[in-house]
Amino acid sequence: MIGPTWLVDDLLRVEELLLRTAGSSRHPVVAEAASHLMKAGGKRLRPALVLLASHSGEPGREATDLAAAAVELIHLASLYHDDVMDGTDTRRGVPTVHAKWGTDVAVLAGDYLFAQGCLLGARAGGEVPAILSLGLARVCEGQIAENQALGAAGRSVGQYVETIELKTAALFAAACEMGACTAGAEPERRRALRDYGMALGLVFQVIDDLLDLVGDPDIIGKPPGTDLKEGVFTLPVLLGCKRDPGLRALLERGERRLEVVLPRLRECGAIDAAFAFADERADAARARLDGLGSEDWVVALRTVVSGVLAQADRDRPGAS
Amino acid sequence: MIGPTWLVDDLLRVEELLLRTAGSSRHPVVAEAASHLMKAGGKRLRPALVLLASHSGEPGREATDLAAAAVELIHLASLYHDDVMDGTDTRRGVPTVHAKWGTDVAVLAGDYLFAQGCLLGARAGGEVPAILSLGLARVCEGQIAENQALGAAGRSVGQYVETIELKTAALFAAACEMGACTAGAEPERRRALRDYGMALGLVFQVIDDLLDLVGDPDIIGKPPGTDLKEGVFTLPVLLGCKRDPGLRALLERGERRLEVVLPRLRECGAIDAAFAFADERADAARARLDGLGSEDWVVALRTVVSGVLAQADRDRPGAS
Repeated sequence: MIGPTWLVDDLLRVEELLLRTAGSSRHPVVAEAASHLMKAGGKRLRPALVLLASHSGEPGREATDLAAAAVELIHLASLYHDDVMDGTDTRRGVPTVHAKWGTDVAVLAGDYLFAQGCLLGARAGGEVPAILSLGLARVCEGQIAENQALGAAGRSVGQYVETIELKTAALFAAACEMGACTAGAEPERRRALRDYGMALGLVFQVIDDLLDLVGDPDIIGKPPGTDLKEGVFTLPVLLGCKRDPGLRALLERGERRLEVVLPRLRECGAIDAAFAFADERADAARARLDGLGSEDWVVALRTVVSGVLAQADRDRPGAS
Repeated sequence: MIGPTWLVDDLLRVEELLLRTAGSSRHPVVAEAASHLMKAGGKRLRPALVLLASHSGEPGREATDLAAAAVELIHLASLYHDDVMDGTDTRRGVPTVHAKWGTDVAVLAGDYLFAQGCLLGARAGGEVPAILSLGLARVCEGQIAENQALGAAGRSVGQYVETIELKTAALFAAACEMGACTAGAEPERRRALRDYGMALGLVFQVIDDLLDLVGDPDIIGKPPGTDLKEGVFTLPVLLGCKRDPGLRALLERGERRLEVVLPRLRECGAIDAAFAFADERADAARARLDGLGSEDWVVALRTVVSGVLAQADRDRPGAS
């Protein structure tokens, strides 16, 4: 991620806190399983959002670092449980906890990371525990909603958006809001940053969903069409079903092959339309920053939006 | 549970809060799955401990009710995940969430209950979020430690005690401590109540472990010897292995049949010794109440100890 140089130092400090927290158990297996995915890397996008947003007030407070680490622990915990549910064997190029220690340890180590995240949130104090646990509750609601919508080719775009707002964007919004509130930012700046986080989260998930269909498997690190195969019908597919009733009928009869579905999505313009949707939300995210000035941290938050979009630039229709 | 009449009213108020919280999602499946086990009953022992302990200070504060509901939500969440890990189909006489909605919903509804518990804890404020999340972290550590010790017939009593302190007693201790701290009790009373909770939790788990071996299956609601079959060697078995090296050798060769193991445990006095251990810890729990006077709430906390022991009274050696 490109950002102000101070961000690198801030993230290193949070990284130390993350490793110390996840590895704090006296039980070697707990410490090892809880640190496993963290040590395999990751972009630390959510902590970066907390740290950047804290410049809307008085940055550098301990509570901000604690909130930044807390939101990443909650995110990692949800990945542990995702891997249990999906039976995923590798993530970030290493075996998942689920694959290495089995289902029980993966469920419990996820729970342990939730607890440690909440504990850091408690140490941060103020409104952080409430914002964090509300964020986590929304992630779970969104995942259950997605689970219930498996195979539903008639789901509306509104329902899709509501689901990913809960599943993904709520934690981005929480990250930005915690950055602002731990720094004592004014209510209006805090609201703007929360809305920015929500819009950014939508862009992030739409791009992720697009990459699952059109991305380079070597870059996205998983076989393309995974969502489709599991019956998770994301924005491009839902837009396709509206435009091409024949495609919807195929999906409802159980068609899940990417080589059948993708050409029809391209043909009817659904891929283009999904990219246009992401661009529109990206504009909305940037627009929420307009009243916040032009300091380096605001520029960096704009760059985060472009960076999320850029992940799929080479896969846009017409890109060379 | 026998207790002061006001406790019934207090518990009803907490029950309403529990149902309102677990059923608060706009998504019907989330609301239904999160309320499912709660509606099937349960003793609400942990909320009762919070409410009783709050009389060590100024009872009746909203934060106490919130903490009482929060600790029950955390407990219920851990049961959802237990059922996923053990593949349990019924609990409290109804199908488990895992059996009714599948693994994914059970994992996520458990996570959702964790989040809602932490959210109530955040609303309670003060030290509640920290005590609660530390309690949850310990539960997870204890369960992972137990998981790692499967089939270890040479485990020491000390290791067993440490595991159940984390897995079970830490949340009892947290309940008592939150009752005291939300009521603004003096530090010394708070410490006494926390220690009482820890000792009570040990008694609770040792009795539970004994009942798994010697209890009436119609009363305990599961086939006897379940722990043994899964390789969870609890106090009576570990004491038996010390007293009867032949038994230890059998277990190490994979013997898991109750009809083989139980007579040897009775023969070598391990069952008696486990009951004696529970009695001793029960005395320790009651002793921690000695400095707290003799008001109805202290009497009730003593009665809780006797009630936990009494569950196994008919199964004691020599009982008629």
